[in-house]
Amino acid sequence: MSAYTELERRFHRLYALRNANNVLQWDWAAMMPTGGAEARAEQVAAIKVVCHEQISDPAVGDLLDRAEEERAGLDAWQAANLAEMRRQWIHETALDARLVEAMSRACSACEQQWRRARPAADFAMVQPQLAEVLALVREAGAAKAARLGCSTYDALLDEFEPGGRAAEIEPVFAHLAEVLPPLRAKVVERQAAAGPVLRPAGPFPVERQRALGLAVMKTLGFDFDHGRLDTSLHPFSGGVPDDVRITTRYDEADWVQALMGVIHETGHAQYERGLPPAWRYQPVGQSRGMSTHEGQSLLMEMQAGRSRAFLDYLAPLAREHLGGDGPAWAPDNLHRLYTAVHPGFIRVDADEVTYPSHVILRFRLERALIGGDLALADLPAAWNAGMQELLGITPPSDREGCLQDIHWYDGAWGYFPTYTLGAMTAAQLYDAAGRALPGLDDAIRGGDFGPLLGWLRANVHGHGSKLSARGLLEHATGRALDPAVFVRHLERRYLG
Amino acid sequence: MSAYTELERRFHRLYALRNANNVLQWDWAAMMPTGGAEARAEQVAAIKVVCHEQISDPAVGDLLDRAEEERAGLDAWQAANLAEMRRQWIHETALDARLVEAMSRACSACEQQWRRARPAADFAMVQPQLAEVLALVREAGAAKAARLGCSTYDALLDEFEPGGRAAEIEPVFAHLAEVLPPLRAKVVERQAAAGPVLRPAGPFPVERQRALGLAVMKTLGFDFDHGRLDTSLHPFSGGVPDDVRITTRYDEADWVQALMGVIHETGHAQYERGLPPAWRYQPVGQSRGMSTHEGQSLLMEMQAGRSRAFLDYLAPLAREHLGGDGPAWAPDNLHRLYTAVHPGFIRVDADEVTYPSHVILRFRLERALIGGDLALADLPAAWNAGMQELLGITPPSDREGCLQDIHWYDGAWGYFPTYTLGAMTAAQLYDAAGRALPGLDDAIRGGDFGPLLGWLRANVHGHGSKLSARGLLEHATGRALDPAVFVRHLERRYLG
Repeated sequence: MSAYTELERRFHRLYALRNANNVLQWDWAAMMPTGGAEARAEQVAAIKVVCHEQISDPAVGDLLDRAEEERAGLDAWQAANLAEMRRQWIHETALDARLVEAMSRACSACEQQWRRARPAADFAMVQPQLAEVLALVREAGAAKAARLGCSTYDALLDEFEPGGRAAEIEPVFAHLAEVLPPLRAKVVERQAAAGPVLRPAGPFPVERQRALGLAVMKTLGFDFDHGRLDTSLHPFSGGVPDDVRITTRYDEADWVQALMGVIHETGHAQYERGLPPAWRYQPVGQSRGMSTHEGQSLLMEMQAGRSRAFLDYLAPLAREHLGGDGPAWAPDNLHRLYTAVHPGFIRVDADEVTYPSHVILRFRLERALIGGDLALADLPAAWNAGMQELLGITPPSDREGCLQDIHWYDGAWGYFPTYTLGAMTAAQLYDAAGRALPGLDDAIRGGDFGPLLGWLRANVHGHGSKLSARGLLEHATGRALDPAVFVRHLERRYLG
Repeated sequence: MSAYTELERRFHRLYALRNANNVLQWDWAAMMPTGGAEARAEQVAAIKVVCHEQISDPAVGDLLDRAEEERAGLDAWQAANLAEMRRQWIHETALDARLVEAMSRACSACEQQWRRARPAADFAMVQPQLAEVLALVREAGAAKAARLGCSTYDALLDEFEPGGRAAEIEPVFAHLAEVLPPLRAKVVERQAAAGPVLRPAGPFPVERQRALGLAVMKTLGFDFDHGRLDTSLHPFSGGVPDDVRITTRYDEADWVQALMGVIHETGHAQYERGLPPAWRYQPVGQSRGMSTHEGQSLLMEMQAGRSRAFLDYLAPLAREHLGGDGPAWAPDNLHRLYTAVHPGFIRVDADEVTYPSHVILRFRLERALIGGDLALADLPAAWNAGMQELLGITPPSDREGCLQDIHWYDGAWGYFPTYTLGAMTAAQLYDAAGRALPGLDDAIRGGDFGPLLGWLRANVHGHGSKLSARGLLEHATGRALDPAVFVRHLERRYLG
């Protein structure tokens, strides 16, 4: 057996185990009674330990070196697979056991303290714990950077956005930071001038909302032989490519939230479902990082799902399922409802026009903190100044400021930029799909997502991790990541 | 670290992984869309391989030997745990890889052919495949027997009934075979003389049956913080002790079937839930084999659940949930419905009076086949002769005869006796509980299962696998397994 073949055998088992864990995690969020948490933590921990042992076995390093020597005999998929194996192996083995343990403890302590500091709106309460996390994250980033041959920040970013580089993100975000504030101001002014939007009056029973969600999933091409829709506190897409489990949550006063959750998670699910079947249990067969994934969900939710064409299709379907009637249910009003822009303090409540500003702020701040250019004690002030610059508002307290997101407190650094990279990816892909499929708008107005899904399958999903995120986007759209496409989308939708 | 402590560490991980598999198996039956089967098989296989590697690691044999030398320092739980570790290690390592592989293939081929032979009612069609399975089962049994120091049949039995011995089962079953046929004849005659039983008229919507099932589970003391009720093709109890998942199936024409499934599986679930928490992830903390497990489910379903006292409690509850009215819903009629005796060809449809005869027949035949005293070609004739002797009826074809059960065709030999050992265990435990708890009948009539559950927790569940099945029964009831207790139960209920 060649070294490469032996590596494939080992990674096959690794992914089968990881997939088992995905199902257990889905069950945890969607099915498990509260008293099952401790037992589930034991199960998940045991599988994770076994996975780590599989990949950190000293034989793997030797096999990777020997497989490199066999590289001439590998085809393009195999070569890409081998590169991904090494990348994963570096991430799994770069940190020694002491650092892994210390990070786990520090993140857990910091997250718990954050849960007290946030309601108290007091950053100082959690600053010591966050300082500990930050120090360890910098140490971990440096250890990975030495092995990956990149900067500390890029090494952290690499976990979420393989091959991503801050130096490439920076000019893109700088462009958005320049263009978006005036654009936002114009949109807000225009929407205010148009008068109030009508809100369909509830309540909307959960079972009817669920039936509407299932109908829309069917329209989007979701394959119920290979997936489910359930309920959880936070919507997510989980499971495995041949059995994709998505969830949403219901508010009987507002059906839009649950339905948008369904459409967003269906975008994630369709990406997983469309990954190359021949490479199911290999690194190259997996999705290409967070920004590409978010690109799929935002393409469905923001690009297609809030388009006027889709709302023409959705309006009668929603009325039929929810029993609505009157002018609030007119496609025109629904479109206004679905595209209302409100600058606010909270990222997760933001619309697509203001969302990037939240992300740009976090990207700037986390780079400065990792690089040592910003002291933690100065974070609240820097946050508020950034909000004023980017969104023209200042949070009344740290609760609506630098305490709002769990990410940093839980050790996720280098994650935030993928949200806006994803939004730009979605815009650029949808733009390219529209040019490749001239009747796309009409198809969507008729509830036919077949052409769009086919184009995504062929140009994105089916490539797995064969290309880099950048390479995949270039391959699919014929150009590098270009923020102008995203800005043009916003201008057309909100000022057109 | 002592050898024993190291073994505990290893078995902890093993059980956490097995528990993960239990959840995945539950999901497979209760939640998974059809298209997820292939991926799930990969996940389950990967975990099983890892489990096998954990326990068959050569270091384990050395650790077991070294721990034996430390035995003087172990307490009773630890010593019992060590003995169970060795037993499991023997089962996992007694067969070489070639034999495991050959059995897996042979059983799979035989089961598939059985699925064709059964509807064709043609045993000869599957005889060659079954011959192959039987030969391999005998080889496997012999290999385990050499390690366990027992007979081939007992080695097979040991997998389902640890420490069980055919020589001890034989006189018990011989007694039943003598006593039951005349008893059954009297019961049938008496029930015929009493005139027809009224059947509550449906349909009974699934949601109402489910609500009734949940209400009854609550009455039985099921803890919904640590478990769920769902639906599957075949009812079962799965999950893990802190998160027990039971299922049933619904027939809108007959609510008794689903409800009895719920009560039966609740008995299994309560056993798992009551296992000693301190030993969750060790062999000694697990349930004590199939007959003890079936003893718990049959105690709830057959002893308590079909008692007149429980039906007095159930009748108004069932009427309330299902909207029933009239004489068919009177406790007296429900009791007759719940205890109707009908000798028939099919084991899984049998009542508690005739069920043991089905099992005794299979026990006799499988011992003769394993021992070489019966040729496979003669199985159909031997089956039919046994049915005539034990139940006074002769199957019209092999479909209603030796082709009805999947067990042998799928490689499960030595399993059948546990059903009737379980029925006798249930009767003997319920009899002892009744003597220890003088007001038991009244408590059950009032819907109070607290005393019964408390007695089971203290006398059965909480002991895990610290004692043998026989030892546990003696400890709980003060006597060895005694078929007379079971027979007396039947006489009281059906002829009293």
